[in-house]
Amino acid sequence: MSEHIKIVVDAMGGDNAPDVTVRGAVEALEVSDKISIILTGRTDDIKKELEKYSYDTDRIEIVHANDVIGFDEPPVMAIRKKKDSSIVVGMNLVKRGEADAFVSAGSTGAILVGGQFVVGRIKGIERAPLAPLIPTAKGPSLLIDCGANVDARASHLVQFAQMGSIYMKHVVGVENPRVAIVNIGAEEEKGNMLVKETYPLLKECTDINFVGSIEARDIPNGDADVIVCEAFVGNVILKLYEGLASTLLSEVKKGLMANLRSKIGALMIKPALKKTMKNFMGADQGGAPLLGLKGLVVKAHGSSTSDDIKQAIIQCIQFSEEDINEKIKENITME
Amino acid sequence: MSEHIKIVVDAMGGDNAPDVTVRGAVEALEVSDKISIILTGRTDDIKKELEKYSYDTDRIEIVHANDVIGFDEPPVMAIRKKKDSSIVVGMNLVKRGEADAFVSAGSTGAILVGGQFVVGRIKGIERAPLAPLIPTAKGPSLLIDCGANVDARASHLVQFAQMGSIYMKHVVGVENPRVAIVNIGAEEEKGNMLVKETYPLLKECTDINFVGSIEARDIPNGDADVIVCEAFVGNVILKLYEGLASTLLSEVKKGLMANLRSKIGALMIKPALKKTMKNFMGADQGGAPLLGLKGLVVKAHGSSTSDDIKQAIIQCIQFSEEDINEKIKENITME
Repeated sequence: MSEHIKIVVDAMGGDNAPDVTVRGAVEALEVSDKISIILTGRTDDIKKELEKYSYDTDRIEIVHANDVIGFDEPPVMAIRKKKDSSIVVGMNLVKRGEADAFVSAGSTGAILVGGQFVVGRIKGIERAPLAPLIPTAKGPSLLIDCGANVDARASHLVQFAQMGSIYMKHVVGVENPRVAIVNIGAEEEKGNMLVKETYPLLKECTDINFVGSIEARDIPNGDADVIVCEAFVGNVILKLYEGLASTLLSEVKKGLMANLRSKIGALMIKPALKKTMKNFMGADQGGAPLLGLKGLVVKAHGSSTSDDIKQAIIQCIQFSEEDINEKIKENITME
Repeated sequence: MSEHIKIVVDAMGGDNAPDVTVRGAVEALEVSDKISIILTGRTDDIKKELEKYSYDTDRIEIVHANDVIGFDEPPVMAIRKKKDSSIVVGMNLVKRGEADAFVSAGSTGAILVGGQFVVGRIKGIERAPLAPLIPTAKGPSLLIDCGANVDARASHLVQFAQMGSIYMKHVVGVENPRVAIVNIGAEEEKGNMLVKETYPLLKECTDINFVGSIEARDIPNGDADVIVCEAFVGNVILKLYEGLASTLLSEVKKGLMANLRSKIGALMIKPALKKTMKNFMGADQGGAPLLGLKGLVVKAHGSSTSDDIKQAIIQCIQFSEEDINEKIKENITME
């Protein structure tokens, strides 16, 4: 390949920007020589960070953006008004075809709105879902949709299932990914109106491996690779995963500090436990893709480390090399 | 009080019936002299179990029911057809005022349907929610609704909030319980149509302590006492709680078995860890009440032990003594 894959990184996005964003970008360059990076944000701030590192100067470019969209700003207004923000400037580069992907740890709302209205959806795709990988006992599953598409329709969920399958197969490398719809029982007649309407449509899809309903209880066990739901339910699942894991582990820690015997035991198990938890929780790729857009947008966690940013950048390579958007066009919107 | 509180126990309900159901009933009698128990189910089977124990024969009565509703039977059909099942016979005793409460570890679907159609709702109550207590870092919270009321309306959720508050205050003993609605962001303008419609109605309620939205992430931390949501979302939260806790603990165990050092450490922490987990997870009262019915119906877990059944019976005492249904009538339906 003569041309680099061009990835825009929102240098100003996230709790620890531009420190970790710039460092993550430099680290990503070291991992792969297939990419070049455009950092959007305040040139002076970015330069000051870049000075800390030695890197291939041909492969990092700064595109100035004077504004930053904060976490508390109403997203629609922010995207509309702050044309010179690191998010809007970065997304416009993708829109104009000057870059392949955009990575940001900034405001989720602004990224979702910007994805739909600045980058824009692939023709025929009705909604652009946010699809994080969540950890399970059998490896990561794709939870699609966790975005802002509330009050979804059955036809949206069918496209989510199709896009999710393509992503899991070609980016994560799961052969014939099992697709399930989140439901409150395993039987076809169970569920709310949306699920009852969607279920038969998924059953008819010949291009996905639909395995039926999945109860929330069976998600952590890894009973499906692509977990389809509307965004409200997806958001509840994603956030409860985070909250419950954190509360349970802090309860475990509290228990370990109960007495001298348990404290000594705790010291002995610490390395093994840390490794297991890292294996289990470290399933994500540093960020969740927003699928179905004309270009890839990856939303990294607000509290991302430089390693998360690096991972988020790296996942764009596979996405671009596998030409996921072409596959989405061919398989979903052209049928 | 001269009269006993009469509690019907479905002797045939659950994975381990009639063994644990009968034992749980006998154990409950030992805990409280305020109650008497009616066991519904096959007389011969129940008698055989009862023979194993010594108990106050004046306080246990058998009412014969020849049928059992299985876990896999379609609920509406089962309740309609199996008039002589332990569930329908037991619920009819409550309906006719011959008993105060009904406890069953049988089919959730059948209990929900039977509650609404056999026992019947309090006049003015639009839906009868299933409201389990879930463990949090600050003690149990009431998750209302986890039942079968899918596609709920805003007015239903308002009644759930009111009934849940009464239950938490008078049965669990939480002063001025904090009520929150499950949402995908903390701001009032966030959410799907149902939440946006319900939020201002809850804000107007003068009889509850509404604290706003709660994100699923903050539920395990105990940020609210009464967690209001429609049944699909409630079911997802409840089931994910179970599934994720079980997967995480099994991952932790796997980690502890990694090497000799961690195995020895595991032995040392086991008692302390077990106690913490028991404190955390043991928040429930052996069963979840179905609120808003003319009489109390308590759904115990299908895999209940005799201790769970005992707890489920014991919670009926407080419910009855505090006259929860009278409070629901006075505070909700009469306004």
